[in-house]
Amino acid sequence: MSELEELRATVDLLAARVRALEDQAEIAQLVAEYGPAVDSGSGDAAAALWTEDGTFDAIPHLRMRGRGDIAAMVHGAGHQSLIHGGCGHILTTPHIVVDGDQASGRGYAFHVRWDPDAGRFWLFRVSANTWRWVRTAQGWRISERINANLDGTQEHRDMLAPPGRTMKGITP
Amino acid sequence: MSELEELRATVDLLAARVRALEDQAEIAQLVAEYGPAVDSGSGDAAAALWTEDGTFDAIPHLRMRGRGDIAAMVHGAGHQSLIHGGCGHILTTPHIVVDGDQASGRGYAFHVRWDPDAGRFWLFRVSANTWRWVRTAQGWRISERINANLDGTQEHRDMLAPPGRTMKGITP
Amino acid sequence: MSELEELRATVDLLAARVRALEDQAEIAQLVAEYGPAVDSGSGDAAAALWTEDGTFDAIPHLRMRGRGDIAAMVHGAGHQSLIHGGCGHILTTPHIVVDGDQASGRGYAFHVRWDPDAGRFWLFRVSANTWRWVRTAQGWRISERINANLDGTQEHRDMLAPPGRTMKGITP
Repeated sequence: MSELEELRATVDLLAARVRALEDQAEIAQLVAEYGPAVDSGSGDAAAALWTEDGTFDAIPHLRMRGRGDIAAMVHGAGHQSLIHGGCGHILTTPHIVVDGDQASGRGYAFHVRWDPDAGRFWLFRVSANTWRWVRTAQGWRISERINANLDGTQEHRDMLAPPGRTMKGITP
Repeated sequence: MSELEELRATVDLLAARVRALEDQAEIAQLVAEYGPAVDSGSGDAAAALWTEDGTFDAIPHLRMRGRGDIAAMVHGAGHQSLIHGGCGHILTTPHIVVDGDQASGRGYAFHVRWDPDAGRFWLFRVSANTWRWVRTAQGWRISERINANLDGTQEHRDMLAPPGRTMKGITP
Repeated sequence: MSELEELRATVDLLAARVRALEDQAEIAQLVAEYGPAVDSGSGDAAAALWTEDGTFDAIPHLRMRGRGDIAAMVHGAGHQSLIHGGCGHILTTPHIVVDGDQASGRGYAFHVRWDPDAGRFWLFRVSANTWRWVRTAQGWRISERINANLDGTQEHRDMLAPPGRTMKGITP
């Protein structure tokens, strides 16, 4: 190999590492957009974080399929009542594993609500979250999100187990 | 173009992508320094996260202009009482949009306080945060931060709306 | 220097910047794995985030030395009772300073618990966290974590002070 070819190979390897970093950063930022979108009542912006047919299960109440369902949730009476009363949906930067054009992750979501009489917030829910993302022509998008309350239910805490671990009650 | 020139062009593009990643990472780390600085009573370190004339509005009570005001807040009786009683100012990694030497972002801040009688914390505030940062010779610094309680006030939740969205009541 | 040599030098500098970004991202992801590991009861996965002889002080109750102690904490009756009752250990992305093959950082940990009668969570602890990490042949690992409640104790809030600051009561 010529010196130029060697350097080109070095640059190609470096480009792959940069792409891996970009994937991580872009997915983390995608997650960071969810809370602000729903807490400002921006249903279309929230829906646009998903693929066209992406899914969002807010266990046990809501089973959303596709962007239309997600926007409808944000624009619906229940969520509108929440944001008019004062609330926050605050997600952590998840653990992210990228595999080519797909990725998966685990993290948490706080759902806090304002109590105007007490002048403080209360912690309505703290949930386990699992994520699947896909690389699209427009960038990374959410293909699946599952949100389940950490209320001691085994299936909910098992969502947080490391990938590859065989979990009781869940076929790997 | 020679093969060497082609490779140089590839490297230049890669360098721009690395710089974009560095900007994101540096700004996220700048935000991660705020809580530790104020909760340890390090007023000068907190102030140094801002530009010399940077602003910080803690709506509705505090309107800080410049590093001196920010350090004075940390060293003041109110904040000192908070940290001696036990508190935490915990910010999320915001959504960050970099545009050359400027950047803007949206995120959340928890303000928690220790209750020694109950032996637990309570959620005093959960706030919408908007940020403006600028690239300086010393690195990225905060030029503007606005913090407003998510108590159902429309102007406060509108702070979290995606950039470019025309919001009710706020001229774009 | 030839043009090729110049370009190689540029690529070498870029590679160092990419490595710095990878270090930051990898350490942040290591921290993001802690909560999911312990809240899913995955003691071995939690322990594997540390070096073989890494330490974890959960002040004032637990003084863990080595992976065995950390796994034993997760598998122990106290922690098992917590996760069966419903809890979350939610850590923030810390401020991270990398120095060659070592790194240190500061951040927060929420410890929330489910109250089945009230149907909400309560904030058991919000703690200052200091971290030391080391680069190993398997990647970055935790060599030391200290977790201390932000209950107004000066030594605990001093943990959050910026590196290099001389703190009252703690020899620099």
